[in-house]
Amino acid sequence: MPPASLGPLFTDLYELTMAAAYFAHRRDQQATFSLFIRGNHQPRNYYVAAGLETVLQELEAFAFADEDLAYLEKGGLFPPDFLAFLSRLRFTGDVMALPEGTICFPDEPLLEITAPVIEAQLLETLLLNVLGTATILASKAARCVTAAQGRPLVDFALRRTQGRDAGLALARSSYLAGFAGTSNTLAGKLYGIPTSGTMAHAFVTAFETEIDAFQAYAATFPRHTVLLIDTYDTHQGARNAVTVAHEMAARGESLQGVRLDSGDMVALSREVRRLLDAEGLPTVKIFASSGFDEFKIAESLAAGAAIDAFGVGTRVGVSADAPYLDIVYKMVAFDGHPVRKFSPGKATLGGAKQVFRHWTPEGRMARDVIGRRDEAPPAGTPMLQAVMRQGRRLGPPAQLEDLRRRFASALAALDECYQSLQPCPAYPVTVSPELAARQR
Amino acid sequence: MPPASLGPLFTDLYELTMAAAYFAHRRDQQATFSLFIRGNHQPRNYYVAAGLETVLQELEAFAFADEDLAYLEKGGLFPPDFLAFLSRLRFTGDVMALPEGTICFPDEPLLEITAPVIEAQLLETLLLNVLGTATILASKAARCVTAAQGRPLVDFALRRTQGRDAGLALARSSYLAGFAGTSNTLAGKLYGIPTSGTMAHAFVTAFETEIDAFQAYAATFPRHTVLLIDTYDTHQGARNAVTVAHEMAARGESLQGVRLDSGDMVALSREVRRLLDAEGLPTVKIFASSGFDEFKIAESLAAGAAIDAFGVGTRVGVSADAPYLDIVYKMVAFDGHPVRKFSPGKATLGGAKQVFRHWTPEGRMARDVIGRRDEAPPAGTPMLQAVMRQGRRLGPPAQLEDLRRRFASALAALDECYQSLQPCPAYPVTVSPELAARQR
Repeated sequence: MPPASLGPLFTDLYELTMAAAYFAHRRDQQATFSLFIRGNHQPRNYYVAAGLETVLQELEAFAFADEDLAYLEKGGLFPPDFLAFLSRLRFTGDVMALPEGTICFPDEPLLEITAPVIEAQLLETLLLNVLGTATILASKAARCVTAAQGRPLVDFALRRTQGRDAGLALARSSYLAGFAGTSNTLAGKLYGIPTSGTMAHAFVTAFETEIDAFQAYAATFPRHTVLLIDTYDTHQGARNAVTVAHEMAARGESLQGVRLDSGDMVALSREVRRLLDAEGLPTVKIFASSGFDEFKIAESLAAGAAIDAFGVGTRVGVSADAPYLDIVYKMVAFDGHPVRKFSPGKATLGGAKQVFRHWTPEGRMARDVIGRRDEAPPAGTPMLQAVMRQGRRLGPPAQLEDLRRRFASALAALDECYQSLQPCPAYPVTVSPELAARQR
Repeated sequence: MPPASLGPLFTDLYELTMAAAYFAHRRDQQATFSLFIRGNHQPRNYYVAAGLETVLQELEAFAFADEDLAYLEKGGLFPPDFLAFLSRLRFTGDVMALPEGTICFPDEPLLEITAPVIEAQLLETLLLNVLGTATILASKAARCVTAAQGRPLVDFALRRTQGRDAGLALARSSYLAGFAGTSNTLAGKLYGIPTSGTMAHAFVTAFETEIDAFQAYAATFPRHTVLLIDTYDTHQGARNAVTVAHEMAARGESLQGVRLDSGDMVALSREVRRLLDAEGLPTVKIFASSGFDEFKIAESLAAGAAIDAFGVGTRVGVSADAPYLDIVYKMVAFDGHPVRKFSPGKATLGGAKQVFRHWTPEGRMARDVIGRRDEAPPAGTPMLQAVMRQGRRLGPPAQLEDLRRRFASALAALDECYQSLQPCPAYPVTVSPELAARQR
């Protein structure tokens, strides 16, 4: 269970003023809205859809509390009949969505909602915030997984994410994308993600000497000790860790690893590895943290770093090179008719859609076609799935382990060019003739 | 009231493992931790301290729930006596902090906590996350306020912030920094911030014609109508708005404004202003949104844009040019003795501190001195205030309006160089001789 819903007031005021105008003009017909990443200036070769489970929970819980309505009434903007309507409002619509862990591209809907326009409109802010955040973080984390070439990654970013629920979204999104675990204890409890963690510099400085701190920690956690060795001097820290490792071995225990957190990670990791090996400690792993993102991971490994696992922090936790998506939620049909918008650089395609994915004979992703949802018989695999009908889920909540496996399979079917950290020519996404014909 | 606390499991696992080791070794002496922005590579000429109110509420509420302890027990990492200790743990420490809205600089403590080391350590992740997020957003918003030269700014970023918590932090931080309001309805309810909002493109496309949509909205909100005029064509949209403005005037109402949301904002705003003025509508304001941050605001105004107010969105909502702070929380004293850390590029000064601000004879900020907290008699104004003692607040919660006024006064005393969008030589911050002497 994620943290409690913040309720329907988590919305831009204009969603409510528009709703009031629709209500006053009895214009609450069925509408379809499409949520997608706009196609210009992409910082990523692909995106990882995420955040749907939170959205579905919010849709099921959608209801104005009395105190919400009291707040709106106090503002004097909304008439009593509209507030009475809001008090009864629940989400009654249908939802089509890409399952979490699906690889997707700009202009492809991540989600489409068909509902009375007031319901669909009021959800805009929430949907963009939740799906945008989870997707941007999953997409960033996936790049780290590729860069680490099979080495375990642990999310260490909780202290630097933009807010608390972003920290939870990061832990979940990064695990979905293939991280081994997180330092985020609450995410461990809420989502069942493996947690890990060792010690901070403060712990080392709270003892008379570094070796006192190491010994105290090892005594408390004989099976889970990773020693942070850079508080004073990494070389001396490594020698102290060797001493403690031998002491542990004499007790039949084994030191799990050491952690580097500053300095030249390539040189230090190689030196520490040599020392550990020379001391007969080849099973002691070297963990590294401090500023790692996909770029620094790739560079360090290319330069021969002897790092066994990475703690990944700030720059991944805020998707620092691309901290926002141009993600939008547009009305594409109203009262049975497709609708469009023509604003320069922001035009949209009308009508409910489906994404049809085509594969090579070897089972790799070949190209996607964005078509009309009702076009038939469609070629390719339809990627958007019905997940909610008339406000009710069509299945039980997805299991995070299943989503993680789904993404791992999806990534294995994506050409390496798109997985690389360099921009590559856009994955082919075209509009079907039927959808194009509807735009005339 | 902000959203409910997520509880003490909102922490990195290593805070708990360190706590267990301290507990096992009866090493829970008093420690002082200092939270500050590290001084290298600064993207801002100054920072605006924010987030303290949330921190104080979390400290007051700090307690492990039974289900938290059950989760920890299940993991098998922690012994029963430690879990029993956690079940009784409350925050009993002292807190010194910069009041929200205080202008501050790298290396200056935003907050210092003195408490038994286990309590102080467990709070690290939460403190960094909450204060870091609020401070980074307030600091970004303040730059927009300066760039807008007195024109009102409204926070429109809720859909694009990194999570829901960040959306609330942004609304509050930007209002503290001088924004006129927010589109975030929940922030209006929780913090009493003025809300505003009008219509989206979807509303316009849900009617047969643009003018139908405008008329419907004006009929519902005769005193609060701002028309979005770029859905199809901004020039025609402006003419339709003029028609509706005249209809409203005939009913004794007045159109509040029009909103531009795409295209060349400088040229369009001037053309629309000319049209409105020629039509006898000089009181109809021009609002502009779409990609505004401090840089685009400054450029648009320098180029002669006729914009009366700005909707500020994504790039401010994620502090896009500097989406994270190098903000840290370091132990600086343990059991009565100063402690330090020597890691390359990450060294810290030992001992509890105070920031002494010096002023020019004209009352402007001249320089800051970071000193020992107990140095006496200190010159300058001590900036850190005691806000909590033995786990209890020393005063009632600060009022947001007061914090907003505090920041406006503070900004007026800051030399223009630091307020500019260009980097300028660092504001002078030095270490007092007494504090320096303690480092030997």
